Amino acid sequence: MKAYEICSAEGIDALHLAERPMPRPGPGQVLVRIRANSINNRDLQIIQHPEPRGIVYPRIPNSDGAGEVLEVGAGVSRFKAGDRVMGTFFQNWTAGGITPEAMASALGGPIDGLLCDHAVLEQDGMVPVPAHLSYEEAATLPCAGLTAWHIVVGLGQIKAGDTVLILGTGGVSIFALQFAHMHGARAIVTSSSDEKLARAKELGAWKTVNYRATPDWEKQVLELTEGRGVDLAAEVGGPGTLEKSIQAVRVGGKIGLVGVLTGGKIDPTSVMRKSIHLQGIYVGNRAMFEDMNRAMTVNGMRPVIDALVDFKDAPDAYRRMRDAGHFGKIVIAI
Amino acid sequence: MKAYEICSAEGIDALHLAERPMPRPGPGQVLVRIRANSINNRDLQIIQHPEPRGIVYPRIPNSDGAGEVLEVGAGVSRFKAGDRVMGTFFQNWTAGGITPEAMASALGGPIDGLLCDHAVLEQDGMVPVPAHLSYEEAATLPCAGLTAWHIVVGLGQIKAGDTVLILGTGGVSIFALQFAHMHGARAIVTSSSDEKLARAKELGAWKTVNYRATPDWEKQVLELTEGRGVDLAAEVGGPGTLEKSIQAVRVGGKIGLVGVLTGGKIDPTSVMRKSIHLQGIYVGNRAMFEDMNRAMTVNGMRPVIDALVDFKDAPDAYRRMRDAGHFGKIVIAI
Amino acid sequence: MKAYEICSAEGIDALHLAERPMPRPGPGQVLVRIRANSINNRDLQIIQHPEPRGIVYPRIPNSDGAGEVLEVGAGVSRFKAGDRVMGTFFQNWTAGGITPEAMASALGGPIDGLLCDHAVLEQDGMVPVPAHLSYEEAATLPCAGLTAWHIVVGLGQIKAGDTVLILGTGGVSIFALQFAHMHGARAIVTSSSDEKLARAKELGAWKTVNYRATPDWEKQVLELTEGRGVDLAAEVGGPGTLEKSIQAVRVGGKIGLVGVLTGGKIDPTSVMRKSIHLQGIYVGNRAMFEDMNRAMTVNGMRPVIDALVDFKDAPDAYRRMRDAGHFGKIVIAI
Amino acid sequence: MKAYEICSAEGIDALHLAERPMPRPGPGQVLVRIRANSINNRDLQIIQHPEPRGIVYPRIPNSDGAGEVLEVGAGVSRFKAGDRVMGTFFQNWTAGGITPEAMASALGGPIDGLLCDHAVLEQDGMVPVPAHLSYEEAATLPCAGLTAWHIVVGLGQIKAGDTVLILGTGGVSIFALQFAHMHGARAIVTSSSDEKLARAKELGAWKTVNYRATPDWEKQVLELTEGRGVDLAAEVGGPGTLEKSIQAVRVGGKIGLVGVLTGGKIDPTSVMRKSIHLQGIYVGNRAMFEDMNRAMTVNGMRPVIDALVDFKDAPDAYRRMRDAGHFGKIVIAI
Repeated sequence: MKAYEICSAEGIDALHLAERPMPRPGPGQVLVRIRANSINNRDLQIIQHPEPRGIVYPRIPNSDGAGEVLEVGAGVSRFKAGDRVMGTFFQNWTAGGITPEAMASALGGPIDGLLCDHAVLEQDGMVPVPAHLSYEEAATLPCAGLTAWHIVVGLGQIKAGDTVLILGTGGVSIFALQFAHMHGARAIVTSSSDEKLARAKELGAWKTVNYRATPDWEKQVLELTEGRGVDLAAEVGGPGTLEKSIQAVRVGGKIGLVGVLTGGKIDPTSVMRKSIHLQGIYVGNRAMFEDMNRAMTVNGMRPVIDALVDFKDAPDAYRRMRDAGHFGKIVIAI
Repeated sequence: MKAYEICSAEGIDALHLAERPMPRPGPGQVLVRIRANSINNRDLQIIQHPEPRGIVYPRIPNSDGAGEVLEVGAGVSRFKAGDRVMGTFFQNWTAGGITPEAMASALGGPIDGLLCDHAVLEQDGMVPVPAHLSYEEAATLPCAGLTAWHIVVGLGQIKAGDTVLILGTGGVSIFALQFAHMHGARAIVTSSSDEKLARAKELGAWKTVNYRATPDWEKQVLELTEGRGVDLAAEVGGPGTLEKSIQAVRVGGKIGLVGVLTGGKIDPTSVMRKSIHLQGIYVGNRAMFEDMNRAMTVNGMRPVIDALVDFKDAPDAYRRMRDAGHFGKIVIAI
Repeated sequence: MKAYEICSAEGIDALHLAERPMPRPGPGQVLVRIRANSINNRDLQIIQHPEPRGIVYPRIPNSDGAGEVLEVGAGVSRFKAGDRVMGTFFQNWTAGGITPEAMASALGGPIDGLLCDHAVLEQDGMVPVPAHLSYEEAATLPCAGLTAWHIVVGLGQIKAGDTVLILGTGGVSIFALQFAHMHGARAIVTSSSDEKLARAKELGAWKTVNYRATPDWEKQVLELTEGRGVDLAAEVGGPGTLEKSIQAVRVGGKIGLVGVLTGGKIDPTSVMRKSIHLQGIYVGNRAMFEDMNRAMTVNGMRPVIDALVDFKDAPDAYRRMRDAGHFGKIVIAI
Repeated sequence: MKAYEICSAEGIDALHLAERPMPRPGPGQVLVRIRANSINNRDLQIIQHPEPRGIVYPRIPNSDGAGEVLEVGAGVSRFKAGDRVMGTFFQNWTAGGITPEAMASALGGPIDGLLCDHAVLEQDGMVPVPAHLSYEEAATLPCAGLTAWHIVVGLGQIKAGDTVLILGTGGVSIFALQFAHMHGARAIVTSSSDEKLARAKELGAWKTVNYRATPDWEKQVLELTEGRGVDLAAEVGGPGTLEKSIQAVRVGGKIGLVGVLTGGKIDPTSVMRKSIHLQGIYVGNRAMFEDMNRAMTVNGMRPVIDALVDFKDAPDAYRRMRDAGHFGKIVIAI
């Protein structure tokens, strides 16, 4: 079978397309013909900076993959050959709160990921693909989709009429917009691109703010909410946005914090003064994944795919993400 | 001012239209020109059977009214003359869990209600009318609207993809259908009338079941959910439905129980075996009311009015409810 | 290895002590030398009435066992030879809400139980024995202990100052008393035996009520709580107690419902009128079990053992339970 | 009546003991003979730095007072002359989540406080004193006691077996220790004084850490919890402690953040990586206060009073707090 491997700290250009022996599913395991991957900023960071993250070489990158079950091992009851499936980001987090054991089972980090044409997964580390989605669409869900669902539904317990602040138009952000809209809530989306903001409007954004044109965007968010502030912020930002998000959230509001890219520091005083609930969010568990899939099925929701890259050109996908021009998810067809 | 009074146990025909002195707002109180009422089965029961409920004569019936602020008492900060307002069902339940003190402050029961042209309310016992609603529409919200919101959002913590079973097409049920749909959930509605079921479909019902044509309707609900059962049931039914609802709910599912009309008994074994959460629901608090109004405003939702009756013909409203032909809310214009 | 088997519907006397081949642990599995069992009313019911419960012959009874790990299968990381362990009631419910799949994995029902000297368990279906407990003490925890923890901590979210009503002095009830006391809450215990009530007092009961001497015991519970009612009831009762428990619970209070023995019916009106939360409780998940063990360890809590029966006399254990003279748990040493 | 007033930004020495006309209770209000105050760091900050906090002169300081009802205004039903009462920190937060309106009703800040011998309070802004407590003891509860309860019970949903990290031995910290112990949880207390740590042990602390002797105290906390980290941290610290607390909390754990004294900044990366729930805590609502009082009554818990100062020497109380030598609460007898 074919797999890309991280073999050094030399980044995207050094990804190596290897030939590995075909794996066989052990008891409780499933062999999957992987048909698509999507990529996340986390995957890019791992490829670019493997060593601070303790990556062992060679390591197959990517947490997100979808494909078809080829063969099941002994005792497998949840799947059968021919099923369309996605892997779960954590192979060992089915329900309940996150644990260190779950964290150690993340695909494409402490264990091999899915940028390959065949992979063996735990039967407890997979979910069915919703019938209305292609493999390419399904491959966008395990990390970015579920992270957004966790913020909006798990943390935010969103209800109709709530207002959600969404930073940017990357993968997690666009999913968060779609999930907020699906629940009758109002989404305020920020971007530096009016074109991307126009697309966010088409996806159901209530208001948009160009943070380049309006550097004090947190004040505009307060004005849009009549001084009250938003109920929830999906904080996926780089340096400097978190303090602004804290200003934009209402008294007693919530902030879901994902993917802090740089070591910026924040003053926690306003978190205290405004009784804010700031919560780190790390993808989600399988039960949440199943709930999300059900919601997408019932509402016919489709992910937004920014670009489709062929397996042989997989490094281009990471280059596109690095250059930050995307809107929605970058997918690799395998 | 004019007010209908319950003066005896002789029912609808004995309602008495009285002339009372114009009330004045004390400190913390507000004088409201009532413009509309809606009626609930609870109001009908109180008129028909006041004595088992400890009603003191003369008592103005009805919990639900909307109107215009005429004058505010000393220290009133939440409202001013000209504001369009609704009373809260409980004059003394702003937030948190229900208490016996809240229960003792229900309009049109332990204290006078709003079937009158002027009334004095506590400033803490009122909320603003959403801008897009008329007085007639607003008058439908305080009891039936809020009860449905409490079941679907408060108890059910509904999320997109959930399935909700809704019994019948009365006031609470139609609101529950609208709220479920607003959150991206699927509603299954029962009725004995195909015409009403067709209207429920127009309001967004996912599936409908005619319980006259399908007496084992709980089995059909199970089939519709592929044997899993619904996540939540809004149980507003008369005798005999609760046991069927219990069968129709999934393992670990929830049932919101309101307005048990008759003394039917149930076997609790299935509640235990299926780990069901059965919860009595008694309208809701002011914080929930404000959340609901925000959701209706954001989503432009309007209540469904079955019929509009003039104040001078108010008894006809109760007769219409008694004869059970309604779909949505019966409103009295004042 | 030796195992008792249910081979017919003929009850306790027909339990058969069989010789079976020694099992070997497959991948992800663990071979355990079982040292003790405890029994529950559920085990007695299964032995006495296997067929309505769909029991397949021969079936090893009992959900609750503790012992020593002898050997682990491939890929087992959670345990090693020599570890002292307990099985979890459900072999497939690690965290989150209950599911039909979890229900199908209950030891001593749909699958073989632990009344045997050796057993193979899933590594995910086991937890370590707290260091301060013997095998006999540990064997009391998986069903009765965890059910009580689920009611008091999971459902009740008990906090200091709360009042809990506990029916009777069987296994679940005594655990519930100990857990309530551990959290600074007040327990009211009922029994028909003044001697048992005196022992409940020694274990920390705040008040006791002899329901034989005081048939209207629900009224006495209301008086003890100054008319307010209890915050939580652990309803493990036979026929007739549930309606009384509903009367004894406060407005907005909770009832955990376990093990309804007989088909008595209840009037749900008071559940509705008092906004009561009635919840079926079916043991609990592994995460709760680990929490409970931690609480017992930190507080040095020991289970109350009613009687210790030798493996060769195991049927006597069920006879003792059937005759209902016990206080706390009946244990079988193996 | 006599009252201390803040009349300038000149601090403790400039507090002015004024004679004001005796207030009369309006409708819904209660006149209280204040018998004791306790002081909080927040009161000291307001006296020392009134202007950044928008204090209007003259302003009576202090949120915390207890006394005896002298007279009730029209419509008061919750209290009568002779009742022993405490004021609630927020005069307008009875239940539910915090709001800007609640924040604007804090005694001794936006409105006059209780460092006086007579005061008029809203009947909804008071609770009864537990029978076993003196006025001096009761005066310690409204701010520090309730803040600790909110962290430990409200945020932490503490259960037996949990481990709580408590920074320092000031008012909130000692209450947090007592409440954690009351629920069967383990408290780890830090201080720079071995003598204070010895007293914390007497109050039930499980472990103590001298942060002067062990500057890397977060590592010691991790060791004490076998590398897992604590479930909850009560973070009342000055600069520099929050980052250490974040290190000391387990994956998925919680931090209650109160009273950030200085503008230190923190790196939020670990909040994200460890899925930590960081929550600002601002005292609490009346329903929580009533729950706390019930818990103290049931468990016979008494607050720890550091020093008792006479009303005429009230400024000395603030000087004592400023010098940070206290253990528990500083009380002023009036």
